[in-house]
Amino acid sequence: MRIADIPTPALVVDLAAMTRNIERMAAFFRTGPCRLRPHFKAHKTPEIARRQLAAGGCTGLTCATVGEAERAADLCDDILLANEPVGPGKCERLGALARRVAVTVAVDSTAALEAIAAAATRAGVTIGVLVDVNVGQMRCGVAPGDEALRLARRVAGTKGIALRGLMGYEGHLQPVADRAEREAGAHRAMEGLVATARRLRETGLPCDIVSAGGTGTYDISGRIEGITEIQAGSYVLMDSDYGRLDVPFEQAFWVLGTVISRPDPTRSVADCGHKAMTKDHGLPTVRGIEGAIVAALNDEHAMIALPAGASLNVGDRIYLRPSHTDPTINLHDVLYAVEDDAVIDVWPIAARGYPEHRYPSSARTARNSTDGQSRQPRPV
Amino acid sequence: MRIADIPTPALVVDLAAMTRNIERMAAFFRTGPCRLRPHFKAHKTPEIARRQLAAGGCTGLTCATVGEAERAADLCDDILLANEPVGPGKCERLGALARRVAVTVAVDSTAALEAIAAAATRAGVTIGVLVDVNVGQMRCGVAPGDEALRLARRVAGTKGIALRGLMGYEGHLQPVADRAEREAGAHRAMEGLVATARRLRETGLPCDIVSAGGTGTYDISGRIEGITEIQAGSYVLMDSDYGRLDVPFEQAFWVLGTVISRPDPTRSVADCGHKAMTKDHGLPTVRGIEGAIVAALNDEHAMIALPAGASLNVGDRIYLRPSHTDPTINLHDVLYAVEDDAVIDVWPIAARGYPEHRYPSSARTARNSTDGQSRQPRPV
Repeated sequence: MRIADIPTPALVVDLAAMTRNIERMAAFFRTGPCRLRPHFKAHKTPEIARRQLAAGGCTGLTCATVGEAERAADLCDDILLANEPVGPGKCERLGALARRVAVTVAVDSTAALEAIAAAATRAGVTIGVLVDVNVGQMRCGVAPGDEALRLARRVAGTKGIALRGLMGYEGHLQPVADRAEREAGAHRAMEGLVATARRLRETGLPCDIVSAGGTGTYDISGRIEGITEIQAGSYVLMDSDYGRLDVPFEQAFWVLGTVISRPDPTRSVADCGHKAMTKDHGLPTVRGIEGAIVAALNDEHAMIALPAGASLNVGDRIYLRPSHTDPTINLHDVLYAVEDDAVIDVWPIAARGYPEHRYPSSARTARNSTDGQSRQPRPV
Repeated sequence: MRIADIPTPALVVDLAAMTRNIERMAAFFRTGPCRLRPHFKAHKTPEIARRQLAAGGCTGLTCATVGEAERAADLCDDILLANEPVGPGKCERLGALARRVAVTVAVDSTAALEAIAAAATRAGVTIGVLVDVNVGQMRCGVAPGDEALRLARRVAGTKGIALRGLMGYEGHLQPVADRAEREAGAHRAMEGLVATARRLRETGLPCDIVSAGGTGTYDISGRIEGITEIQAGSYVLMDSDYGRLDVPFEQAFWVLGTVISRPDPTRSVADCGHKAMTKDHGLPTVRGIEGAIVAALNDEHAMIALPAGASLNVGDRIYLRPSHTDPTINLHDVLYAVEDDAVIDVWPIAARGYPEHRYPSSARTARNSTDGQSRQPRPV
């Protein structure tokens, strides 16, 4: 299969660029002491996670959802759910998962802790816990210091649970373009986290893991003494938002589109709208056409504004660079891995969406499967 | 199954409200002369399309992608692809589809016309064409008048193709909240379209279909003499963007989330971020908690700001009203149809994404399916 044969819109991965990104990040972490736990949420693609793990320097995988964790458990035996598992079925599924692999989750409330402990006890397993500490992102997490210490004590004393340490994600600092500012911010954010970790250890509480960091701060937080692992994800494929930063990673994936309309010489319309790439971090950029910009994205259309002299005709292909990796990949079912103009492989984005809701595939594909009587409500 | 058992995040459809929306829209169109061709892109859900068709007043279904058309062909025998089918495989798939049902597509270039005609000839079928006219949206489409007439003549003389009429979507007017302004705009936009249709007929060219309209203009453009069908879609489930308008449709779907963290009494965090609902038309709104707002959406988190006195604790459920129906539904695999607190049915969103890219389901679910040798690139 050639790139020219790929139906559009589609996601294509530049295999060589991705491989270089994986190697650059692994090289930073292979020597330790801090390690990498790549975030599976960025791409949800087992084949990419396998290559990240194979490159070395990794402790396991980080996930954001239970569905991701279930897929990630096929790839390695140490999973961190860097999120609070609250809601029907989540703790039960983690209990089942902990029979196969080591599972550690983030916790910032006793309500969540008790539900996890109950599920662990029912499943006859131990689930690891990191106390989630708010290091300034103002999302989840307890305050560093006394509050974190109090929850850590409670965790350590809970049956079915093993306290493993702390998590403090400085998400608010990832997009700060100025390195000095990002560096100063990360140091401030990590200070309270590392101090809390020290207090845990002084109190005799276990604290083997202190997890932080992302693509924007991996080489800042990853060099701070006391941080044991970094949960970066976007580095592997990159996007235009992280592309503003001085990180040594290349753009490695693109939305491939086809021009379907050229209403006038200054405007072309391609078949890839915001159902093919999100615009939550801004509009995508156009590769290889000097001065061309994406003026707008509709559901199924990219409106390309062209400079004088540029030509983009019906049937031409375009490559757009998304502004945000994670939610863009979550829109698709496969990645086309390409080298030059050849498609080398097609990788399922196996953890896309929320797999717990997937309808049985027989029902999804059967023609007229719910015809006739189905108009009568049936209890499920 | 009860609502309390649904894993989150999830999409829930208020069956009674949706049924009222379908009935209100059908009542407008049942008496004609203008008819409804509901847009399948809004929900991509066969069970909803079936109910729309069963309510009456419909000529068939409108689709935005070939993948949607392939699913819609299981539901009715007259499909309009209101979009230019350009790119690998699209025309061939439409040719195959036209063996089963009547297929009509929008065209605004001779390049697209020729590709469709070639595919129709190869498949031994006739494919209908509407000349796509730019009525002010400035997306696809030729200018009304001479330019449209010229393309229509060319279409009418092309083997394998049947000219069926014109399409002119006034998408730019759908969100105009002021009815007088929306009405004046739609009348201006439709004037050139209807005049062009008249010229086609005067020239002896066929023009049975003049397609326009959406949820914001169905009862404006749908009353203009010469418009034969309206391609509204969002009315069936609605969103907060259309909710600003004076249209008689109720909010009928919600993102159901679970509160996973309550860092302080004024802030709660739920497990439904912009991987569960898009924010391209703004942030979602909160149902049932006076003064509560969604302050931000991250990939997997909704940050809820709470007024004094409101309480939202870990484990509580919340309902968020999305700002934009179509791309939000496209993030999910199923809709939970609910009545009171009972789940009546689970509907597959069968045309989600781009089905032509779906990986064989055996490969998606097999554990370690690509282990070992798969690290060697294999040609596909």
